[in-house]
Amino acid sequence: MGVMSTVSSGQHTRPMCYLLLLMILQLGLHTAEGVWPLPQTLISSTERFHLSPQAFYFGYGRQSAAQQGCSVLDAAFKRYFALIFPDYTSGRWNLFSDKNESKILLQICLCCFTGLESFSQLVYQDDFGSYFVNKTDIKDFPRFQFRGILLDTSRHYLPVQAILKTLDAMAYSKFNVFHWHIVDDPSFPYQSRTFPDLSSKGAFHPMTHIYTQSDVRRVISHARMRGIRVLPEFDSPGHTKSWGKGQPDLLTPCYKGGIPSGTFGPINPALPSTYHFMATLFKEVSVVFPDSYIHLGGDEVDFSCWKSNPYVRAFMQKMGFGSDFTKLEAFYMENIVNITSALNKTSIVWQDVFDYHERVSTPQQITHINYEVRSTYYAELSRMTKAGMRVVLAAPWYINHISYGQDWHNYYTVQPLNFSGTEEQKKLVIGGEVCMWGEYVDATNLTPRLWPRASAAAERLWSDEKQTSNVDMAFPRLQDFRCKLVRRGIQAEPLYVGHCKQEYQGI
Amino acid sequence: MGVMSTVSSGQHTRPMCYLLLLMILQLGLHTAEGVWPLPQTLISSTERFHLSPQAFYFGYGRQSAAQQGCSVLDAAFKRYFALIFPDYTSGRWNLFSDKNESKILLQICLCCFTGLESFSQLVYQDDFGSYFVNKTDIKDFPRFQFRGILLDTSRHYLPVQAILKTLDAMAYSKFNVFHWHIVDDPSFPYQSRTFPDLSSKGAFHPMTHIYTQSDVRRVISHARMRGIRVLPEFDSPGHTKSWGKGQPDLLTPCYKGGIPSGTFGPINPALPSTYHFMATLFKEVSVVFPDSYIHLGGDEVDFSCWKSNPYVRAFMQKMGFGSDFTKLEAFYMENIVNITSALNKTSIVWQDVFDYHERVSTPQQITHINYEVRSTYYAELSRMTKAGMRVVLAAPWYINHISYGQDWHNYYTVQPLNFSGTEEQKKLVIGGEVCMWGEYVDATNLTPRLWPRASAAAERLWSDEKQTSNVDMAFPRLQDFRCKLVRRGIQAEPLYVGHCKQEYQGI
Repeated sequence: MGVMSTVSSGQHTRPMCYLLLLMILQLGLHTAEGVWPLPQTLISSTERFHLSPQAFYFGYGRQSAAQQGCSVLDAAFKRYFALIFPDYTSGRWNLFSDKNESKILLQICLCCFTGLESFSQLVYQDDFGSYFVNKTDIKDFPRFQFRGILLDTSRHYLPVQAILKTLDAMAYSKFNVFHWHIVDDPSFPYQSRTFPDLSSKGAFHPMTHIYTQSDVRRVISHARMRGIRVLPEFDSPGHTKSWGKGQPDLLTPCYKGGIPSGTFGPINPALPSTYHFMATLFKEVSVVFPDSYIHLGGDEVDFSCWKSNPYVRAFMQKMGFGSDFTKLEAFYMENIVNITSALNKTSIVWQDVFDYHERVSTPQQITHINYEVRSTYYAELSRMTKAGMRVVLAAPWYINHISYGQDWHNYYTVQPLNFSGTEEQKKLVIGGEVCMWGEYVDATNLTPRLWPRASAAAERLWSDEKQTSNVDMAFPRLQDFRCKLVRRGIQAEPLYVGHCKQEYQGI
Repeated sequence: MGVMSTVSSGQHTRPMCYLLLLMILQLGLHTAEGVWPLPQTLISSTERFHLSPQAFYFGYGRQSAAQQGCSVLDAAFKRYFALIFPDYTSGRWNLFSDKNESKILLQICLCCFTGLESFSQLVYQDDFGSYFVNKTDIKDFPRFQFRGILLDTSRHYLPVQAILKTLDAMAYSKFNVFHWHIVDDPSFPYQSRTFPDLSSKGAFHPMTHIYTQSDVRRVISHARMRGIRVLPEFDSPGHTKSWGKGQPDLLTPCYKGGIPSGTFGPINPALPSTYHFMATLFKEVSVVFPDSYIHLGGDEVDFSCWKSNPYVRAFMQKMGFGSDFTKLEAFYMENIVNITSALNKTSIVWQDVFDYHERVSTPQQITHINYEVRSTYYAELSRMTKAGMRVVLAAPWYINHISYGQDWHNYYTVQPLNFSGTEEQKKLVIGGEVCMWGEYVDATNLTPRLWPRASAAAERLWSDEKQTSNVDMAFPRLQDFRCKLVRRGIQAEPLYVGHCKQEYQGI
């Protein structure tokens, strides 16, 4: 209001001014477009409050357990102030607004980060740049406790800055688990204190393509400030080619015609030194990554190299495994699970470990991630929950797979509990995960490939399924949310023809 | 070399230094990875020249027709110096190199921008940061004269900066035509001097989502400096919904039950005022866009609205078209072609105009663009060239269509002349065009979606087909070229697992 009245006063005799007014009337009033992901209950009214950036502040309620000095919340207040009033914080705000009018004290009750996020999404600007929030009553909680995003920093290195930016965007969609698939066959970017050769020889570059201890701390701290836990994955015994470069005798030498061929297979499960190494590595990892979860991989193990190696075969005989190499893998995984259990970690493994190795012990501790991308994941969910496994569903959210058109529909219409099973079984599905595997993804295309497509999965994992079953209803709200992401500096790609008031400026 | 000897002198008693030396020896020497798109003839040797940024300059030969003061070349020299020596121009260069050694005078013969581009791709840095170029003999010319990229600024607005950046990247791949699909149904961002209402009412926003006259001049000038012509498209009579907002009585009112339904169809071909408007608009456009080509569209005209309108039907009767609405469209297109011919422009239209309206006159002047995305484009090429039409092939290069994996193979393996026809017919295929339609593309994802996938088409349009028939041979060279794009600040996405020495930093 302030801006307009200033423009018209002193100029109101010039026809130009009327033209301007006319256009503004045509543009009409904006109202809040909603919150993404949709809260469990949201009752909004047309009654609106004028917010003045000059007077607005977040404070702690008298009854609040947290008080000033709670660094996580203090920082969140500051961050969300800047997100809500970007013009003001960038110094582009002008001071024409009527201070008396805008000094309304709003008392809102926010119980966590996600409440702050919802509130921030409710604030909007009218065509004069004034900030408003409509009177809104929200009661909210997530449908699933585990709402993850996997980034793969082995197939391509992602600069720390790209990870931090992803964490920012994750918080906007209320994701709360960053599954860091940090190492794999192509490269080992994690710089270990205990085994520095793993990255100095196994990373794409020993200095520019690594995560130092301080990088990791920075990622974990950035995530923690946003209510996101960091789940590290050190996948073994397969997917470990890069480990072998810096750790001699770790991988299995493959044989051809009775002699070593010079190539290497999965980690060698037949050597005591292997378990000593893994115990030492995981001891470090369990301190560096304080989260109670740890991901041990266990997927896609190719047995051919083990089969070719006479020492591995001799070990099989000694252990009484016959020629069943799944028993060897189960033996290996059991050892690794025991190592991490002793470190008070809850192990997570890929589905394979359940599929082929039902004898792996302490199933209560293991949360499987279903990772097959196919329409049969309902059957897998039935089978795994029936066996009492806690499950995180990833299969329908392999978001690195792209196709032309509005493929967010596919991510949105997943029904995670639509498998046959008891109520008890359904409770074992603790959440879901969006996987961004790195074959074709690095810092150049990560963000537009991830957002807003991952946000479709975010709503599925957070919101009530009945209230969010219709893609056509979701579309304008997601489109609006995508514009909010762009406004916040996230390079989120468009859903379809159209525009945002504030387009992406980071070219 | 300078850097290393400085580090080792004074420190050579410390073991750390030997370790450093050892690592550098391991990294080995880099050599030139080649030029993309592949020159017609390239003979390289292992003999290499040390280039010193301090001493290097581009100059004009004594025999050169162009001399100092030729602004286009002077600017190109400056630009390419910065591309070749980015460390130097950013002030990160250090002065340890031996000046006597590096003051070798290189005499190279470059005949155009594309020669400069090839030369710039041949320069490389060794592991010490020194610049080298191997002795190389290149004879080069493009296979096709028309090598275009279409951007669609109607379905999403692209900021001028995004267009300029695309022009930069186009020059790196030796594209030479920017086909600017500037307006369409969703929005009319071109700010016309003569008809300002077209954009003030038809753009997504009358101020932030338009191209002013000065914006257009900037684009054309930026393109010209890089040897790129700008081909504007004002598509009609279909794809014109946005035109109707700012120009009353231009579109055909659709009828339902004998009365106007309130909706509008294609441009009204039955009114003299239409042709007066189009002539006035194209008169302006032909001056603003000085290129001799102009694209008139003519695609995907829906006849249902014309059919519903009694005045259009009466006009059909008067003209003796019976109920054949293709005749009406041909009549319209003929008028538009005549308007632009009178302005000394060569008209380009989409394939439809040929398919349905063979009676449109002056076929020599019309270059058709085959736009059907299907495997039958060979048949279309045969048919159109048989009729004597000059053709630009776009069908296999609809690059807005995405799929998972290395889909650049599809763009690379196109054989534009592999249709049945005489030598004369084949000469009528003057080139090809990569189309980036804008339904799902704006400034957030344009660049990674375009590059390096479009570069695959660029090589097909530039290079000898026999020398570039193998995708496996092309892969490492394209991967290297992609890293060059990233180093030059182009957000080009990765082709597969791996890394670049200099990763994308623009997060």
